[in-house]
Amino acid sequence: MTQPNVVLHPDLPPGVREFLTDKPDITVQSPTDGAGVAESLAAGGSVLVTHTWRDEFLTPSLRWIAGTGAGFEQYPLDRFEAQGVVLTTAAGVHTNCVAEHAFALLLALTRRIGEAARNMEHARWQPLIGEELGGKKLAVIGLGRIGDAIAERALSWGMDVAGCKRNPTHYAGPVKDVRGTDQLIDVCGWADIVVLASPARPDGRPLISGPELEALGPGWIVNVGRGSLIDETALIGALSTGRLRGAGLDVTGTEPLPADSPLWNDPKVVISAHNAGASPGFGRRWGVLFDRNLAAFTGGGDWINRLGHDIARGH
Amino acid sequence: MTQPNVVLHPDLPPGVREFLTDKPDITVQSPTDGAGVAESLAAGGSVLVTHTWRDEFLTPSLRWIAGTGAGFEQYPLDRFEAQGVVLTTAAGVHTNCVAEHAFALLLALTRRIGEAARNMEHARWQPLIGEELGGKKLAVIGLGRIGDAIAERALSWGMDVAGCKRNPTHYAGPVKDVRGTDQLIDVCGWADIVVLASPARPDGRPLISGPELEALGPGWIVNVGRGSLIDETALIGALSTGRLRGAGLDVTGTEPLPADSPLWNDPKVVISAHNAGASPGFGRRWGVLFDRNLAAFTGGGDWINRLGHDIARGH
Repeated sequence: MTQPNVVLHPDLPPGVREFLTDKPDITVQSPTDGAGVAESLAAGGSVLVTHTWRDEFLTPSLRWIAGTGAGFEQYPLDRFEAQGVVLTTAAGVHTNCVAEHAFALLLALTRRIGEAARNMEHARWQPLIGEELGGKKLAVIGLGRIGDAIAERALSWGMDVAGCKRNPTHYAGPVKDVRGTDQLIDVCGWADIVVLASPARPDGRPLISGPELEALGPGWIVNVGRGSLIDETALIGALSTGRLRGAGLDVTGTEPLPADSPLWNDPKVVISAHNAGASPGFGRRWGVLFDRNLAAFTGGGDWINRLGHDIARGH
Repeated sequence: MTQPNVVLHPDLPPGVREFLTDKPDITVQSPTDGAGVAESLAAGGSVLVTHTWRDEFLTPSLRWIAGTGAGFEQYPLDRFEAQGVVLTTAAGVHTNCVAEHAFALLLALTRRIGEAARNMEHARWQPLIGEELGGKKLAVIGLGRIGDAIAERALSWGMDVAGCKRNPTHYAGPVKDVRGTDQLIDVCGWADIVVLASPARPDGRPLISGPELEALGPGWIVNVGRGSLIDETALIGALSTGRLRGAGLDVTGTEPLPADSPLWNDPKVVISAHNAGASPGFGRRWGVLFDRNLAAFTGGGDWINRLGHDIARGH
């Protein structure tokens, strides 16, 4: 077999490029933009390392997309299947990091760290009365690996945890009270805090809009899933009435969040720039996954995180 | 017995005033400043509710100080003993809240939430690569109730935890590796992260100065204990060389922190205004303690959190 011809998208998480560049037995190409990626793939590239997608990446030589993200809503899965292209995701690689980031955002709201950081720019010493998570009710929406990791941490801190999942049967994680998404509004009504940790819905429509925010009432919401899960106009409305106590957003409807969004200026909001999963440990852990899948690609062993096999499309 | 004559210091944590004002069987006075407190105590006040101290509060009628703070370094304990004044602290009332706040500060450093909040003022979408706590080494300095609560949370998140304590014998908390303060520098050398959760030293001198920060190296430090525990000049030095990765401070050497302190402008620093223990749940929990001690004061039952009895002065 000839050496796998691996094309790297220019925009990769920390450590991935370094990991691949050092590897023997593969040929690596590093184009500097999307057009260059398409060219390299048209010229015989067989493996694409990416978390973004353009249709011109689907060339006749493409055989395997080694994804660096946990989601897959950006990919034309039917066309991959028709053409025999394997897609593997990085699900699990960011799990603990994203769970910690969800708590970083949540504690920034309840302990008012965002406001404290803003006060620093004005050298303003202003004691702020925060809230405690212990004893509060947390609803985790999306109980995949990340949702479970968030729930485990919350349970160990003395929170009451319930969860929502598209298909709540056969769930074997740490959450005792698991409901179907059809009961989302009841779960929001029960909760003090809602954390979104699910992929985008296939139709791109929000899970959380006016009625769910109304049911949550004077609580907090954190999104480490996808920006499309929240109806941002409804969110801004619930914040502006003062009813919703705060929002911690690692993802937004449009990314980068437009400069004229009122979310930027709201002291009850903490925004991070879709970096919940970014840590220096990413490349090393992703590399373990890549190596296993490279072995599968070149003929031996089983795939991990292969879409349609390990990972159900209807997740 | 005549009704206890309770004098409230004007500066009290959330809910304490409301709790006391509603109580039958006590007389409550609410002076508006320190001079008024001294006057009320000179006029026969027998109980003082406070967390600050002035020597003119020690009047002949004073019998019990119902402290609203966990520490007691501000009080002239020998004079209390000579005069038969009981001091009870609020130790334990803030425990979980302060532990959560310590994590809020720590996660604000490792997940770079302080920088993200500053970016918000400029509508700047800037993905920031953070770090993960899981697998990192945490040194908790001060293993009282708060230190133990921090250690428990860290252990449940997959951190390695060691601790330092003035007297490490007879320690029965969650930390396995507990050293005496004489080994502080070794513990700092081992740690990725140091969290200070101890009271001020009796002599007011810092525990952490240049050599300890040098031993910690490229790590993070969080202080939810007392500002005097850190030599602030050494801290500013370690931050300015870029060696120390970040500092989360709920307490500072002088409070309020002076406007010209370089700590305010350092993006690697997150400062909150001595509010780690502030939550709406404070008054209710403190009230349970007060009621138990009020019963002891008026003749029945045992004191809780009485200094020199439940709480050792050399803690």
